[in-house]
Amino acid sequence: MYKVVAQDGRAKSAEFHTVHGTIQTPVFMNVGTAAAIKGAVSTVDLNEIGTQVQLSNTYHLHLRPGDELIKKMGGLHKFMVWDKPILTDSGGFQVFSLAKLRKIEEEGVYFNSHIDGRKIFMGPEESIRIQSNLGSTIAMAFDECPPYPSERSYMINSVDRTTRWLVRCKKELDRLNGLEDTVNKNQMLFGINQGGTYVDIRIDHAKRITEMDLDGYAVGGLAVGESHEEMYYILEETVPYLPVNKPVYLMGVGTPANILEAVDRGVDFFDCVYPSRNGRHGHAYTGFGKINLLNAKFETDDRPIEEGCGCPACRTYSRAYIRHLLKAKEMLGMRLIVLHNLYFYNHLMEEIREAIRNNCYKQYKKSKLENLKRGVE
Amino acid sequence: MYKVVAQDGRAKSAEFHTVHGTIQTPVFMNVGTAAAIKGAVSTVDLNEIGTQVQLSNTYHLHLRPGDELIKKMGGLHKFMVWDKPILTDSGGFQVFSLAKLRKIEEEGVYFNSHIDGRKIFMGPEESIRIQSNLGSTIAMAFDECPPYPSERSYMINSVDRTTRWLVRCKKELDRLNGLEDTVNKNQMLFGINQGGTYVDIRIDHAKRITEMDLDGYAVGGLAVGESHEEMYYILEETVPYLPVNKPVYLMGVGTPANILEAVDRGVDFFDCVYPSRNGRHGHAYTGFGKINLLNAKFETDDRPIEEGCGCPACRTYSRAYIRHLLKAKEMLGMRLIVLHNLYFYNHLMEEIREAIRNNCYKQYKKSKLENLKRGVE
Ligand SMILES: [Zn+2]
Ligand SMILES: [Zn+2]
Repeated sequence: MYKVVAQDGRAKSAEFHTVHGTIQTPVFMNVGTAAAIKGAVSTVDLNEIGTQVQLSNTYHLHLRPGDELIKKMGGLHKFMVWDKPILTDSGGFQVFSLAKLRKIEEEGVYFNSHIDGRKIFMGPEESIRIQSNLGSTIAMAFDECPPYPSERSYMINSVDRTTRWLVRCKKELDRLNGLEDTVNKNQMLFGINQGGTYVDIRIDHAKRITEMDLDGYAVGGLAVGESHEEMYYILEETVPYLPVNKPVYLMGVGTPANILEAVDRGVDFFDCVYPSRNGRHGHAYTGFGKINLLNAKFETDDRPIEEGCGCPACRTYSRAYIRHLLKAKEMLGMRLIVLHNLYFYNHLMEEIREAIRNNCYKQYKKSKLENLKRGVE
Repeated sequence: MYKVVAQDGRAKSAEFHTVHGTIQTPVFMNVGTAAAIKGAVSTVDLNEIGTQVQLSNTYHLHLRPGDELIKKMGGLHKFMVWDKPILTDSGGFQVFSLAKLRKIEEEGVYFNSHIDGRKIFMGPEESIRIQSNLGSTIAMAFDECPPYPSERSYMINSVDRTTRWLVRCKKELDRLNGLEDTVNKNQMLFGINQGGTYVDIRIDHAKRITEMDLDGYAVGGLAVGESHEEMYYILEETVPYLPVNKPVYLMGVGTPANILEAVDRGVDFFDCVYPSRNGRHGHAYTGFGKINLLNAKFETDDRPIEEGCGCPACRTYSRAYIRHLLKAKEMLGMRLIVLHNLYFYNHLMEEIREAIRNNCYKQYKKSKLENLKRGVE
């Protein structure tokens, strides 16, 4: 059950009740591709850094350790020991970006595993079956992620097929949720809006999937090469055609600024690999922009990554020590920055929720964006 | 101040009071080569796994980030945020094992950095000066680690030089401890017994260094290629010539069985990279021997690494999950096993102390060794 508790312009803050607990939105989902956050971050750590939802990748878990194995172990929650919500993607994005030699047919996609090259088929039913085996809180519909840019005619055909696939996903999920041995019989389904940068295709598609009364709606196929301004424009034009009384999820986005702008256009679910990926490369987020801890100027800097931050890294360690760990290639260095970055994102969402609930989102966004651009001295 | 609180045969348990707190012996020192335990283990974690003493490497820290920098940051305790005892080695072992093109002279050793090849000189004074900059609780004397096997004549000359170097170490440490801006003016010095497998040289050397009334004594140059039986024999013959009212430290040793045997011969300080190195390769210690978590038989094993273990890995995660993490090359897998292994060693020492204090060490050792050999089903 999804309940909007505050609206400020198009920005909305909601409570989303699931079998695995309540999610306060806007929310940033922390990406644990292979049932773990890269950077030696455990689910115990996730609780310490304010994570509400963990996102895992269907494609990766299907290949290794295998969704059948995870089902046998009692589902993904039990396997990775996380009792809060989990969203699984459909595997579609990975099939279209990681796998080699793919072939798209009406029934689904034929491709080769990026791990061992073996041939695999994945269609809507397969994706949903895998996600049902994982037992995630929220399953994502299997869609095509068309390349950017795509011809208009290609996009129309692709979006049509994605809609037909969505119908099949819903049917399969309903069937599986009714079976005795299903891990999570209350598994929810989010549909995905596509259409590239063609606003009319986006809007038409948004209307069609809204009719299906799903548990939530995602905007997919953005942040794939178009400019930030194009992305904001698409959101501005499309989100109004998605139901306000359902979660709206912008997939794979993005920077703190992207999130601030998307929230202002009605989005309230996000996920992105930036905080963990940047952390592993020594880049830490602060309210005044990113800093590169490999930079020589931090060599004897005894301040935490960010003054006042309550994360496990900043509560204890200095920039100088973390920089040393990175230079010495000690895994602990990566781990500390990833913890800080995820905390930063989770904390940003907390501020965003507060600003919406206090009806001062525009003002908050403006000052936050200014600070992010200011740079760290 | 070192106070033996229990003796059982030659096995001894003591309280060693330092400016950084009291060490209960026998103790296993957790090795954090470059001011961090490999496997993304932080000093916050060390408190959780029962670590009493942390050991860091002078050679590594001298090269990176540099001991002058660490002194500037307030010393190693402040830099890595660890307020309990730290022992630093002298750098000698690394100079003799890692560095290239070394040349040993009376004044010290000329060698090339293994990082960038630059020429470095390290003698007793340099080693002590570096350790004083680091401000460790216990500094180790700079010695030569002769190769195994070495000719008797080479060994005699080497040990003589090591004794002369020890005198210089002591003099330099006394001088530095008297200076105003020294990080830890109470820094202690342990001398190192050498002599390879020549028992008479060992005994003669033990007698000579005992006369110097140092804060503690180490047995070095063992576990370098000789058999376990030879090592136990050397300890049996040599340790009685080291003062019982001082710490006795067996450097770089070893397996749980090695530790059990050495304790029985009067040793009460240990350090070894096995638990962290083995952990990084998927090998976990249990009371019934090591298990390789990469083994297929753990694929769906929902038990913890070791039933009843109170470590952060076993309290939460299953063998199956940790195995998956290793296969997926997720850093978290290594981290969890390293945490378990260090906890295992720290906990083993706790049992050893209890057995000695309860006067049942022989019996405890016997049953522990039998179990370790039994294997895990
Ligand atoms: Zn922080
Ligand atoms: Zn354990």
